[in-house]
Amino acid sequence: MSKCLFWGNALFTLYFFFTLSPSTSAQTKDHEADAKFIDKIYDHSLTDSRCYPWLEHLSLQIGHRLSGSPSAAKAVNWTKSMLDTVGLDSVWLQPCMVPHWVRGAAEQVRVVGSKKNGSFPLAALALGGSIGGKVQAEVVEVDSWEELDQLGAAGKLKGKIAFYNRPMDATRIRTFEAYGGCVDQRVGGASRASKYGAVAVLVRSMTLRLDDFPHTGTMHYDSAYSLIPAAAISTLAAEALSRTLREEGRAKVSIQLNCKTLPDVLSYNVIGEIRGSERPNDIVLVGGHLDSWDVGHGAHDDGAGVVQSMDVLRVLKTLGYRPRHTIRCVLFMNEENGLRGGKAYAMEAERKGEFPLASIESDAGGFTPRGFSFDGDEAVFGKFFDKLTTFQSHFEPYDLKFRKGGSGADISPLKGMQGLLSGYSPDSQRYFDYHHAESDTFDKVNKRELELGTASMAALVYLIDKYGL
Amino acid sequence: MSKCLFWGNALFTLYFFFTLSPSTSAQTKDHEADAKFIDKIYDHSLTDSRCYPWLEHLSLQIGHRLSGSPSAAKAVNWTKSMLDTVGLDSVWLQPCMVPHWVRGAAEQVRVVGSKKNGSFPLAALALGGSIGGKVQAEVVEVDSWEELDQLGAAGKLKGKIAFYNRPMDATRIRTFEAYGGCVDQRVGGASRASKYGAVAVLVRSMTLRLDDFPHTGTMHYDSAYSLIPAAAISTLAAEALSRTLREEGRAKVSIQLNCKTLPDVLSYNVIGEIRGSERPNDIVLVGGHLDSWDVGHGAHDDGAGVVQSMDVLRVLKTLGYRPRHTIRCVLFMNEENGLRGGKAYAMEAERKGEFPLASIESDAGGFTPRGFSFDGDEAVFGKFFDKLTTFQSHFEPYDLKFRKGGSGADISPLKGMQGLLSGYSPDSQRYFDYHHAESDTFDKVNKRELELGTASMAALVYLIDKYGL
Repeated sequence: MSKCLFWGNALFTLYFFFTLSPSTSAQTKDHEADAKFIDKIYDHSLTDSRCYPWLEHLSLQIGHRLSGSPSAAKAVNWTKSMLDTVGLDSVWLQPCMVPHWVRGAAEQVRVVGSKKNGSFPLAALALGGSIGGKVQAEVVEVDSWEELDQLGAAGKLKGKIAFYNRPMDATRIRTFEAYGGCVDQRVGGASRASKYGAVAVLVRSMTLRLDDFPHTGTMHYDSAYSLIPAAAISTLAAEALSRTLREEGRAKVSIQLNCKTLPDVLSYNVIGEIRGSERPNDIVLVGGHLDSWDVGHGAHDDGAGVVQSMDVLRVLKTLGYRPRHTIRCVLFMNEENGLRGGKAYAMEAERKGEFPLASIESDAGGFTPRGFSFDGDEAVFGKFFDKLTTFQSHFEPYDLKFRKGGSGADISPLKGMQGLLSGYSPDSQRYFDYHHAESDTFDKVNKRELELGTASMAALVYLIDKYGL
Repeated sequence: MSKCLFWGNALFTLYFFFTLSPSTSAQTKDHEADAKFIDKIYDHSLTDSRCYPWLEHLSLQIGHRLSGSPSAAKAVNWTKSMLDTVGLDSVWLQPCMVPHWVRGAAEQVRVVGSKKNGSFPLAALALGGSIGGKVQAEVVEVDSWEELDQLGAAGKLKGKIAFYNRPMDATRIRTFEAYGGCVDQRVGGASRASKYGAVAVLVRSMTLRLDDFPHTGTMHYDSAYSLIPAAAISTLAAEALSRTLREEGRAKVSIQLNCKTLPDVLSYNVIGEIRGSERPNDIVLVGGHLDSWDVGHGAHDDGAGVVQSMDVLRVLKTLGYRPRHTIRCVLFMNEENGLRGGKAYAMEAERKGEFPLASIESDAGGFTPRGFSFDGDEAVFGKFFDKLTTFQSHFEPYDLKFRKGGSGADISPLKGMQGLLSGYSPDSQRYFDYHHAESDTFDKVNKRELELGTASMAALVYLIDKYGL
């Protein structure tokens, strides 16, 4: 188990302890007023929020919404129409061209001619961006890049299906670290195997569960090598395939993927804002991504982040808060396979000369809140330290912690502009149970856990807006 | 929203900050060795624990296990047989007589003669301990004790069914506080209404969800008043009944409960221990309760606590830990409707002259860990403060917090003996979704969340055993 580095937590609490005890009465009064308003935010979010019914509609009436799909277009129109009801200062669509990959008929992946079990299916999903194709070949299991290179150099991958079976590390307490430790197989595995003559790749699903849901996700080809089909198989299928190889010394698999990439499609980020009264050009952003993979409901990934972000503005508006800076909700298109929405947003922000004072993304599921992570190197970060330290004290009653870490993919193109980037961090234990799989459905989201996320983000937005950074 | 008082958290971190920085190298070395061993505990728990398969068996093969039932007897024998495989120094059954209440045929609760909806059923479960009976009467909704007393004094409850509809307070961040704020209706509502001549009571289920699962639970009669039937109805049923009263001005309900109390039955606490090498008479206890209500699987309440407690001893044993004090796992019988197991345990401990150095109960579900709460008044508690402060620093990497609060029902009879009492505190958001309901099933428990609980308790047991208190 590798422990995560905590970022100055002792120091944070220390600071709070010293500054609040002998503080001036004006400071104490401010602190009390803020605590009271944050209480109001939580109360309202837990009793009268919209995020949960919104997620229900997005999940059950619209469903999954891969970039370029008709349902993604529906999601754009419906979320805009919901934001239109909130009484914001403006709501608009920001165009971007997005990839249009389609899965086609269900993929067929089977072990054929096993001595022990004959022919049997492996639960599979083509990886997003994969070419289609029909292949039948012997399988070679690969558990590390070193092993791949050795096998490749020895000519043992030529004409074979490479099977990446390196599992997520269950001993990582934060599951995102376990994901980060093996998603390279999914993203780059096809071209790295194609380089050695492999004809297709199968990848063990990126989940810590042992079950029969394949988990898809994006992959990239290196155009230096032939494009070959790539699919994820469920962890149970991966175990069965590995067992066959171990027990029989060989396994042959037939793969048929019916996916293809169509021409790019015009799509949109959906944006709404409450205009700032003092510094309208400084933006406090909350966002999530509107697109999802084309299975399940995309409820945790990232329906949750979408409805929470919408609701943050609604909650602040309903409570009568008048912001100093512009508070903006951005529902990004195409996080999953292109980041075109995030890039379009950043480009437009730069063109308009806006300053992204703070950008908070919710893209880690609708689970119970644990805190916020903050992005940036020490130099960039140092300037925010004092303010964040005082802000953090307001989250103690809600058991939330601030730490240094990542933020979010959609806001990453804003990095160069030197604002604060933050990722809302819910508890991560269940996220990869559902991530990119048919099982990421509305019923997996707990109403209170979702609402507490809305409240937590609204509270942070409030503090940043009120005090600046 | 009422915030919980945090107990010295700032002070805790402060202490850690000061004592560890200028610490002696021996202290630092100890701290590092402990951190390493705790890492091992987590690693092992997340990759090779037994708690999850044990919970699967307890849930799916044995099922719910109300005190006195044949399945409770099965659970006693099976958990003992599992503890027998762990290589403990001793495993035994500790007898206690337990109540034997049986539900009988499914309860029938219906609104009859609604002008708008005719006759319709209300999803209901008799409360544990209720008498059976058949009643048909007008319903009077009661939302507070003051209202009950006013209605009663005005003679308006005579011959009526009292309907307690005060909901759990959704704005409480810790759901146990919301439960604590209205469970008095379920426990004491029958006799308090009977005092005014009511003929039966219906109680809104103790859950924050709006769904159709009734949640049962214990109730007590005050023998000064006639015993009347008492049942919980689902929150949706409570809303429907309240709406009928509001819209039609009256509602008549028929109730048939087929439950009864049979003579007490001989049952057992299941106990296993690793004998301490230095102070075998000082006991470090981990426990949960083996009985459950007679619906669902009792998976979160308290199958989770049972298998975690068993696994704590197995993990420490497997890692070769030799304790100074006796480490004991106690699976208490009859927490739900009598606490007879807890009382029998405390009495025997006192008789044998044992000292309950520390007793940790897991009875808040198998959810992701948030920390530990510690019981006792300031005087009792003061003596443990320094040690706990240093122990807490080891839980920072796992995001766990120590706080003052309750501990557990089963260990509460030990209070007088002046040891440390602690409650393992998982995240509480989902607990009352399933508590005492048909929906408390194995599939609601996440494997990693359960395992992290085992690891957290094992780590605390290790520190307490190694350093004393």
